[in-house]
Formats: sequence, C-alpha cells, structure tokens
Amino acid sequence: MRIVLDAMGGDHAPQVTVQGAVMAAREYGVEVMLVGRRDEVEAELAKHDTAGLSLPLVHASQVIEMGEHPAAAAKTKKDSSIAVGMELLKRGEADAFVSAGNSGGVMATALFRLGRIRHIRRPALSAIYPTIKGFCLLLDVGANADCKPEYLLQFAHMGSVYAEKVLGIPNPRVGLLSNGEEETKGSILVQEAHRLLKESGLNFIGNVEGKDIPTGMADVVVTDGFTGNVVIKLSEGLGGMIKSLIEEEIKAHPLTAIGGLLAKPAFGRISRRLDYTEYGGAPLLGVDGVVIIAHGRSNAKAIKNAIRMAKRAVEGGMLTAIKEGLAD
Amino acid sequence: MRIVLDAMGGDHAPQVTVQGAVMAAREYGVEVMLVGRRDEVEAELAKHDTAGLSLPLVHASQVIEMGEHPAAAAKTKKDSSIAVGMELLKRGEADAFVSAGNSGGVMATALFRLGRIRHIRRPALSAIYPTIKGFCLLLDVGANADCKPEYLLQFAHMGSVYAEKVLGIPNPRVGLLSNGEEETKGSILVQEAHRLLKESGLNFIGNVEGKDIPTGMADVVVTDGFTGNVVIKLSEGLGGMIKSLIEEEIKAHPLTAIGGLLAKPAFGRISRRLDYTEYGGAPLLGVDGVVIIAHGRSNAKAIKNAIRMAKRAVEGGMLTAIKEGLAD
Repeated sequence: MRIVLDAMGGDHAPQVTVQGAVMAAREYGVEVMLVGRRDEVEAELAKHDTAGLSLPLVHASQVIEMGEHPAAAAKTKKDSSIAVGMELLKRGEADAFVSAGNSGGVMATALFRLGRIRHIRRPALSAIYPTIKGFCLLLDVGANADCKPEYLLQFAHMGSVYAEKVLGIPNPRVGLLSNGEEETKGSILVQEAHRLLKESGLNFIGNVEGKDIPTGMADVVVTDGFTGNVVIKLSEGLGGMIKSLIEEEIKAHPLTAIGGLLAKPAFGRISRRLDYTEYGGAPLLGVDGVVIIAHGRSNAKAIKNAIRMAKRAVEGGMLTAIKEGLAD
Repeated sequence: MRIVLDAMGGDHAPQVTVQGAVMAAREYGVEVMLVGRRDEVEAELAKHDTAGLSLPLVHASQVIEMGEHPAAAAKTKKDSSIAVGMELLKRGEADAFVSAGNSGGVMATALFRLGRIRHIRRPALSAIYPTIKGFCLLLDVGANADCKPEYLLQFAHMGSVYAEKVLGIPNPRVGLLSNGEEETKGSILVQEAHRLLKESGLNFIGNVEGKDIPTGMADVVVTDGFTGNVVIKLSEGLGGMIKSLIEEEIKAHPLTAIGGLLAKPAFGRISRRLDYTEYGGAPLLGVDGVVIIAHGRSNAKAIKNAIRMAKRAVEGGMLTAIKEGLAD
C-alpha cells in the first residue's frame, strides 16, 4: 500500500512528518511517499535509519502555510506539497493522502482535484473527540458553516461508515447534536434533519445534547460545521483553562504542591486518555479519495497514527462502502 | 425594594428557596415575596429565625414542574407560582422576579404577562460563564434556536447593558461567537450580524472562537440560542468528564491517592472559582421587567445571590438603560 504524506504540513514539519513516516513505514510495512521540498526532506531523512523502508521522495517546490487563505492558496500554489500529493492520489499512484497542514487548503485542493463522491452534496471535516469511554467521531467541524438537512443526513452516513470500517465500531450509534433531547427540539435545520435520520436506516439514537458528547452516548455525532467548530475549539479552550487552574492552584501552597507531585502519574494517565495523537487524524469525508487530516500541532507519533488511519481506511474499503451506502 | 421569589422553583424547592430568601432578606435588607403553596412555604419558614425580616407569603396553588412542557404549562397553569409571581411584577407590586424553576416556563410566562420591551424582537436567556479571569455573560443560551442578525445585535445591546449596569464591567467587550476570527468567517447569520455589530457603537471586539470563551477575551459573548445551549451543556459535560477522570485516575494507585488527598484544597479552590452559585442567576433579557433565572440545581447560596443580582439590576436601572439604548 502506498500512502502520500504532505511532508511540509504542520507546525513542526518537515522534522516530525519525516520521523512519523519512518515510524509508520517500519511499523505498518506501508510505502510512504514524502512530498515536499527535496533538500529539506532529504536532510530530515538523513537523520534516520531508513534501510529496507520504502520512503520515496516527490519534490514539490511550494508550501501552503498554516495561516494562508485556503482557497486562494489552493488556486495559486500549483506546486504545493498538498497539490502535488493530491495529484498522486488522483492519478491512482497512491491509495491515500495524509496532511497535518492547512486543513482548509487540503479541503479546497481535494475538492478541486479529486472532486466529490457522486451524490455527495458537501464534504465534511471530522474530528476524533475524546469521551469518558474512548472516542467518538464528530462531524462536520468546519467545512460547512451553513448546512441543509440533507447534508447532515449525508454526514451521518459517511460518519457511520467510517466508524464501522475504520474505527471498528459495529453498528455505530449516530446522534444529532441539538439543544434538547426531544425530537421537537432544535433549529429548523436540526428538526428537519431529525426526520430524515429517523428514516435513514442508520442506528440513529436521536438528539444528543452538548453534555452527552463527552459521555460517549453516541459513536458518531452529526452537526453543522459552525456548531461543530465551536464544539472542538471550546473543548480545547476549556481543557486548557482547567489545566491552568489545576497548575496554578496546586502550586499555590506547599502541601498541595507536594500532593500534585505525588498525583502526577494520574494526570499523565488522564492526558494519555485524552490524547489526540493516539488517533493521529480524522478523515475529510465526501471527496473521492481517502484523505486524512492530522492536527497542525501533530508530533511524530500523531503523524504515524494518521498514516495508520489512512491504511485502515483503504483496507476497510471506506470509499466503496460510502458509495454503496449512497446507492441504497 | 421588593423582589418576588418563586418559592416552588428548582430541584430543591421550597427548602433552599426559602432558606435563600431568608439569607437575602437579612443580608441585603430587601423584601422577598415568597410565592408558592402556603402550607409548604410556611413549614419551611418556621425552620428559620425571620424576626425583623420582610418575607411576605403569596399563595399559589400550582407548580410548573421541571420536566413540563413550558408553553403548555404556562398556558394551562394559571395559578402556578411562576404565573402569580410574574403578575405581581406586572402590576408593579414588586420590582423583580427570581426563579430557579422551569426556565422555559418562566420565559413563556414572562412573554405572556410582561411582554417584550418595545422594539425588542426576541428575548434572550443568558448565562454567567466562568473564565480564567472571572466570568463572562453568554447569550442567547436557549430561547431562540433560529435567529436573525438583528436579534444578535439586540442580544449584544442588552448583554452589554447588563454587564455594565449589573455586573459592574465598564465598557464591556462584546464578542460574536464564530468559527474563525476573521470577519469573513462564520455562517451567513454571523457574517451579517458582524456587519451590524461593527456599526453598533458597542465595544465590539469582533469574532471570538470557542477557545476564546474560557480565556475571558470578551465580557459578553453573543450567539444564537442553539449554539449557546450547546456551549453551556458541553461545558457542563466536559467539566464532569474531567472531574470523573481525575477521581478515577487518582484513586487508581495508592501513591496518587495520597497525592490527591494532599492536593484536595487546590481542587476545592478550583471548584469555588468555577462556582456558578457565586452569581446565582442570569437575566432573561428583553422582557419588560427584571427577571432572573437561577440554575435548577441551585442551593440556598445560589438563590441568595440570584436575589442579589435582581437587586443590582433594579438599582442599576437595567430596564431603563436597555430601553434608552434602543432609542438611540
């Protein structure tokens, strides 16, 4: 299997991308095509023992920076690592594409070069969200600020296929994010989507509220890209706030500081349970190819695991399953 | 000053409501009119030393339960504590109304009996949201799942007045919740609201993202009732999840358990910093009267502080200020 990695994507590229690629090639036996500036990538590759590993390098002279306007950059930077990598996928020279770069840029490029899956109205960005029981798949988290009910129905279909085929969750429970449990609750969009989801044949468990996401009530949580984006960014901010408060208050007195030191392994275990790097990345669903987007702050482990996600998506026949689901 | 308290409202009424009323009457020197079932309220009052306090009792035979359908209950239960209390406010026999009961029921009753402030399109439920620096006012958190740009503009006006006159924040910074900082980001609703807010004369700081709420970047965060509701319920759920994780992981090993015991005072300080009971309640803004809604799980201290909020809103001339702001 051949997986394209945007070697220039992410806050710590190309160091961590190359390192993650080396780890993935060794651990999963996949070929990882590194796309990026030849000299920079080669310099990183030289730091690792790559004997016996398949890590071909494909040169791309440009980089879409994290802060760039996605659509504009996708249009003008025709030799970006994202564009060149996506083209490899399109031409069938690779099975999947992974990037920790500008997610809007990846989406715009994927739409432009791969196009949408037939019948899919809008692609959706997804996120792996930590719950008390494990993780759930949340989508859309930013691709579509304004949605129609049918979009949400399609997000549910695609999310359900991904949860089953890639995350290995049998018969995933699909919840619709709303401001109340009752089916009469919600915006007009959500009320109409609820009706469509009830008749969808999916394992639809009804509306879920904000408080139900972290409890793991649903395996797939469907929402519009505006609300989904607020959810992931608020969670990040709130987690950061609680962490700061704990550090500040534990350090405030000598006795609690000692307690904090003793309790440190527990905090380590909590961090690992909430650690996004375990999953590495989440799919851009609805485009005609396997595209995994990793966090911009990805470390090497996250990159490695994002490549594993891509591998699983290919092996699980995710794309075919989505297409077949739509045909039904 | 006379404040009406829905003695039957909340999960622990009438015990904590009466206790909170006694505390408020003593501490703030206000008259608290207790509305509810005479025998039940009298039984609670008998448990306290009320000598010298002004705590008149007004009988209401019915109660709108927490789980009841708000609009239906507001319509049919004409002798509910909420209806009778609101009527006292309407007739000018009281200056403000406080309830920890069914918030939808309070809103429906307020709309029906007090009506909206002239020119206000929709009332908004607000919430006091903890930040690393203190608290901010978030609205709407559930009254209007579907909004128009002008509603958000009015929410911003009302929230700004409340923050200034009642919470004592000079020139409050108003942020618009969006899925990106740039003014081109957001749903169509948010983009249009952004344009209105820029010209509003308010201290509008632009879009804020989910991660910016807990940092206290804005004093007033404006959003539609769907998103706002997801924000407060997600925060509740996430806080609960992190608390469970900490308890579980600290207990998992003897050494971390000892650390946890030593660090306990730090966790107590954190809880107090995030404690909603300090604020007690948040206003229902846009109806023609001072209405404070407290959390259903309120304890006596929260009720007392909700009464203090009501007192401040009356003293600060909140209603007049909102009306004058609209006239400009």
